[in-house]
This record gives sequence, structure tokens and C-alpha cells, in this order.
Amino acid sequence: MIVELISVGTEILMGNIVNTNAAYLAEQCVELGLCCYYQSVVGDNADRLSETLQTALNRSDIVIMSGGLGPTQDDLTKEVAAKVCGAELYMHEASRDAIKSYFTKIGKQPTDNNWKQAMMPQGAIILPNDNGTAPGCIIEKDGKAVILLPGPPNELIPMFENSVVPYVKSKLPSIICSKTVKICGIGESRAEDMISDLIAKQDNPTIATYAKTGEVHIRVSAKAEDEKTAKNLIKPVVKELKQRFGNYIYTTQEDMSLEKVVVDLLIGNDMNIATVESCTGGMLAARLINVPGVSDTFKSGFVTYSNKAKRKCVGVKKKTLEKYGAVSKQTAEEMVRGMRTVNKADVVVATTGIAGPDGGTPQKPVGLVYIACLVGDKVTVKEYHFAGNRMKVRENAVTSALNLVRECILEYYSEKTFGKK
Amino acid sequence: MIVELISVGTEILMGNIVNTNAAYLAEQCVELGLCCYYQSVVGDNADRLSETLQTALNRSDIVIMSGGLGPTQDDLTKEVAAKVCGAELYMHEASRDAIKSYFTKIGKQPTDNNWKQAMMPQGAIILPNDNGTAPGCIIEKDGKAVILLPGPPNELIPMFENSVVPYVKSKLPSIICSKTVKICGIGESRAEDMISDLIAKQDNPTIATYAKTGEVHIRVSAKAEDEKTAKNLIKPVVKELKQRFGNYIYTTQEDMSLEKVVVDLLIGNDMNIATVESCTGGMLAARLINVPGVSDTFKSGFVTYSNKAKRKCVGVKKKTLEKYGAVSKQTAEEMVRGMRTVNKADVVVATTGIAGPDGGTPQKPVGLVYIACLVGDKVTVKEYHFAGNRMKVRENAVTSALNLVRECILEYYSEKTFGKK
Repeated sequence: MIVELISVGTEILMGNIVNTNAAYLAEQCVELGLCCYYQSVVGDNADRLSETLQTALNRSDIVIMSGGLGPTQDDLTKEVAAKVCGAELYMHEASRDAIKSYFTKIGKQPTDNNWKQAMMPQGAIILPNDNGTAPGCIIEKDGKAVILLPGPPNELIPMFENSVVPYVKSKLPSIICSKTVKICGIGESRAEDMISDLIAKQDNPTIATYAKTGEVHIRVSAKAEDEKTAKNLIKPVVKELKQRFGNYIYTTQEDMSLEKVVVDLLIGNDMNIATVESCTGGMLAARLINVPGVSDTFKSGFVTYSNKAKRKCVGVKKKTLEKYGAVSKQTAEEMVRGMRTVNKADVVVATTGIAGPDGGTPQKPVGLVYIACLVGDKVTVKEYHFAGNRMKVRENAVTSALNLVRECILEYYSEKTFGKK
Repeated sequence: MIVELISVGTEILMGNIVNTNAAYLAEQCVELGLCCYYQSVVGDNADRLSETLQTALNRSDIVIMSGGLGPTQDDLTKEVAAKVCGAELYMHEASRDAIKSYFTKIGKQPTDNNWKQAMMPQGAIILPNDNGTAPGCIIEKDGKAVILLPGPPNELIPMFENSVVPYVKSKLPSIICSKTVKICGIGESRAEDMISDLIAKQDNPTIATYAKTGEVHIRVSAKAEDEKTAKNLIKPVVKELKQRFGNYIYTTQEDMSLEKVVVDLLIGNDMNIATVESCTGGMLAARLINVPGVSDTFKSGFVTYSNKAKRKCVGVKKKTLEKYGAVSKQTAEEMVRGMRTVNKADVVVATTGIAGPDGGTPQKPVGLVYIACLVGDKVTVKEYHFAGNRMKVRENAVTSALNLVRECILEYYSEKTFGKK
């Protein structure tokens, strides 16, 4: 079943607000197993609204329109949708009463134009709004449905969950399940190369790769009559991906981030962590601390951007800085060892690099970053070359640092279990 | 001149990412004086892409397509746009070389499919990409233009600014100039209230407010035959805004960020800064360090998220933490004073707050943040209440901390100049 989204509103069209409603609705529709091929944004203009809705009805089964249900003359969505579907508007008494009680509740008087919001298309299913004055509705026509929702997210989201989800589910013959395999440490092109045979022969389930900063996500989606069958279709593909990508996969859980995986790994092994950051300048600590409940696990973080700070805070030797430079394997190693001396953290991770735009040389170009990780008494230092502007280099460095911590902890425990290689 | 935006990508269509590119492009187009009536989102599908582009070309003068310029088989935007405009693709040598050097720079090997990105439509204006491998292009046809941009915002934004803006300006009969007045410390509603009379009578120049995280931007745009006339129309309005908002304005320069203003203020007064962060966990240091050349000015930063770290790193007293709590005026003050003892920085700023989702109480709800700033021997501590999720609370805290540093330095020098009040 095909769904199409039409967001109505000049504010979105002019870029004053970001269209988060569309992202929310799209994600929910995918989860319901609907296919979404088109989204549109159009202003509060009767002709353009009408044209956009007609086009959508020609190619989709369900059209979800959001916005333009307000009380003012600008708000035309309901009027246009009713006209396109050939339905007259009438005063819906229950909605009128709801608007009345809403105003009583907030201690204000409705204005005359508020009653316009209770005018509903004949034959439509009315969707009550507990969080505002604009009821939504579903207009069914020739086996298709036009669903009208209010624009404010705090009204749209509960209305979608409470009224639209059950309606759509009752109409669906099959469902869709998907699973995302999240990979860190290899780029999108290489990841796709490694599974080009699977992509070439994909049908059901489908396989798609998505590039994120420093990560690649592979989504496997299957369509079936019921959830169990869909999940069984996904399973062997995910198993194959696991075999091909091994430890590059950091999670197969939808709501799991790389920093959450690292924090869980630390908590699970009763370890704490400390950060020493030069080029990332606090971004690494900030990402770890974005995980709620990290408090006991995050020992402390230092931002040692200047050479002086590197020497003073974590005791990097003057000689090392002079001989090898601040951006070097040696400095990175002394940063983690120095931090261990300062606060005895179980895991210490350090970054030092040239984020640009200036400061690069032929030997040490912009984008060169060393990341060191100390677990147990073993220091691992890796050299990276990142492309892009200052922020991109730093974001990539943070993701790679998190991934290095993950790899080093995994290695530490595998060596402890299986003996040193 | 009418512009239309087509965002290409399954990720947007499926709600995996929010379409911030469309908001950015829409805002920029409005600023250029273009009218935007439609935005669409469509997946990586040749038929649907082609249909959407044809519809757009029928009703608009400029079509900006973003996304789908990647190296994979999925990426079809360029192929489809070339076909719709009747242009063959050819190997563009300069783009091929650019891709080669890009990979050399990052120390990796291009894969075979990367060369696809150097295939460009015959006759198109090529837009170089300094931040990625996908060049953009402008295909002109029958007096209309199809502009193709890469999807990642860090590639799209510089390409738009460097290449698309000058192109569009060259096509416009009149020019639009604008000036942005950037404000920190008051909300959008209040800012709008303070200039409601100006907004009500606006014509040319127009005045619009934009809410950013912790900031409000007021954009004044004038349309005229030439730049000088437009600038003369803007001048008195900006002067009026300066009178009304005074020190709330941190800049009127387009490319100036709050952190850059703070760093310039520090450098200009030969001062250095140190940060001590609890709830912001490194984000404040990270924003300061995003300013190139901050090295000598940024003394060092500590991330002291746990109580232990607050005691150990900056000597917050156990008694203070027990009596007033980690999130208190007193702890914030001891954090800055402790850091001064540690590294003698001229300016020290500290954050401590409850970012949520847990940890709130009726007395100290989620969103409560204390920020302290020490300049000279004076500590200023302010209490803030921020709304939104964990990340939003932390982002607001960072912006407010930067603004507090700015205010405190300005006050320090005004007191030094005019004597203590």
C-alpha cells in the first residue's frame, strides 16, 4: 500500500522551520509497512494545494496531509481536500463541543473563526484532538484515503498514534519488518563492494546501504503476511552480513548508537574511561556524555589543545613534542599514559590531529589524526586520514576514537580469554 | 523567478533523516529573492525522479536537486537529470583528477564506482566539491536551470554558497541584499514583540526573525537595482535594531558565529580561557575549538561530569556538594575558582545542570543549569531553565555559556574604563 505525504505551510516552504513532521510520519509509515515514494511541501494556496492532492491521489493509496487546519482564513487544507473528494462541509457537533471544552479548560474565549475548525467533510472519520482545537479527519474515496492532521507536532503525533495507526493497520494485507546492521571502520563504497552480489540479487528482503559520518548502516527489509515470516526472511541475510563484516559491525539494534555500545561495553566489564582530546577538543567526551547514566563510567576528560596543556595536564614530554611534534604517534601514546597516571582510569583514549583549515604540511597534511587507546597496559595507536572541513575531520575522529575504544576492549577480553596471540 | 526544491534520497523518504537541506536551501532562496512554491522528496528511482523533475521544470524556472550523486548504483540523480535535459554524460577530466587527489589526500584507494562521479552532463557548468567526491553541476535548458548538489550538508552548503549563489545572482534582474542581526539572551517571541511595529509596516526592506538554538537571528532584506541602493535601504533599519537590542546583539556579520565573537574578544584583549564542564560534557570546549587558531587562547578544558571528578580536578568541596548539590550556584562558583587555581586562566567558565531524561526533582527539574564565569576576580553565576531533550538542554547551555563569557568580558572592560558602578 502506497502512502504519500503533503506538508502544508509557508513556514516550511520558506525554510523558517525544518519539516520534522515529515520525518516522523515517514518513519512511522515505514514501520507500518507502507511504501512512501513521494513527499511534498506546498503553501496555503488553494490551487496549488488542490493540484498537489490530485496528483498524490492518482499515484498513492493513502495521502497524509499535515498543517493548514487552523482557524484563520489562510488555513485551507480541509476545504481543499473536501472539494477534491467531492464532500460538503457540515458542522460536526462533537467537535464543536470539544472546542468549547478546550477553551474552558485553558480559561480563554474561542473567537468566531474557531468554529470553522468544527466544520468537517460529510462522511469523514473524525479524529479527536486532545491537545489543540483542530480535529483531524479521514476522507475515504474510491478505495483511497486522505488523512488530515494538524501541523503542531504535539497535536499531530498523538493523533497519528491514537487514531491513524489503528486505521491503517485495519487496511493492510501484509506487514514489513526491517533490521539495521551498523558498521564502523570501513567506508560506504567498500561496504557496498563487499555485498554487491547480495544487492544485485535482492528482492525480498531488500538491502540498502546508508553512509553516516564515519559509519555505514545496512538496512534489510522484508515484506510478509505476518511479523514472524518477515523476521525469518531477514534472519539469514543478517547472518550473512555478520559473517562478511565480523567485528566491523558494532550493533544490529535499531536504537543503539556507537557511544551507547561503548558505554554499555564499559559498564558490562565494570570499567571506567577518561578522555584526553586535542583536535576533537571535547567532542569525544560530549558524545560519551550524551548517553544518559554515563556518570560513574566517565571518570574525567581533559581538553589539551595547546602543547602547554599537553605537558601540564598529562605530562607529555617537551622532548617528545619537539622531536615528533604534537601530532604524532608518540605524543598520542604519552597522552593516554599520562592520563592513566593522573586518574587511574581503566580505559584512556586520546586524539591529536590537524583539523585544518591551516597547520598542514606535506608530511603532516590537514586531516591527519592519531588516536591512542590504553586498555590494561597495552596502548594501541592508529593513524587516520580524514577528508572534509575542520568539523568533518573532528567528527570523523570522534567516531573513529569510539570505534577504537570498542575494538581495544573487545581485543583485551579476547586475549584474556584465549591467551596472547 | 520561481525555484523548486527536489530532495532525492530514500533516507529522507523513509524518515531516517530530517530534511535539513530543504530548510537551508529554502531559506537561502528566499534571501536571494526567489519564490518557492513547491518542495518534493523522492527516492532513488529513475521513473519517479524523472517524472518529478519534469513536473518541476513545467512550473518553475530553477530546480535544485540535492542528493543521489554518490558512487553507488542507487545514485541516479545526475543520470536522470541529464536524460530529462537531453544531455549525454562524459568523463570530466578535472573532476576525475579531483577525485584522485581526494583519495590520495585521505590515503585510500578509490573503488571502480567512484569514477562514475566524474561523469558529467555535456554542456553543464561543473561545481567543484572541496569536501567530498561528488561534484555538482548546473544544466541549462530552454532558459531554465537544473542545479544538482550533493546530499551531505557539509558538501551542499559550501557548494551552494560558493557556486550557486553567484550563478543565481547573475540571472536575477534586481538584486537582494540582506543583513543578519544575531541576538543572544532573549527568546524569539520577546524579540518579535520588541519589533512588532517594524514587522507590521515592513515592505522593502523586509524583516524576519529566525529562532536558532539559544539565539534569534533577525534578517533585514532589501530589493533594489544595485547593491549600493539595497545597502542604503538596509542601513537605517539595522541602526534601529541596534538601538533596540543593544548588547543582546553579538554580531551583524553574516559569517560570524558566537564562538568566533568570543574567541576574537579574548584574543583582542590578550586573554586566555579555560572550561570546566559537567552537563555540557565537552561541548563548550568543542565549540570554542571549532574556531581555527584558538590554540594559544584556549588554555585547557576539564570535563568533570561526576562529583568525584569535580572534587579531584578542580577541588570542589565535599561539603558544598553535600549541602547544595552538584547542580547549584555554589558548585558552579567553586568550579571556576578551582580551575583558576589549577591553571591561572584569565577567563574561566563552568557549567553544571540536569540535562535529563532522569535526575530531575520538583526543586531541581530537568533543564535547570547553572553557568559560572570568572573574569578578573569577579564570578558571575546565572541560573537557566531550558526546555527540550538531553541534547537540546546541553546545546542551549553551551550557547548561553558562550554568551555569558561575552557579557562578562564586556562588563569587565566597561567597569575598568568607567569605574565600578
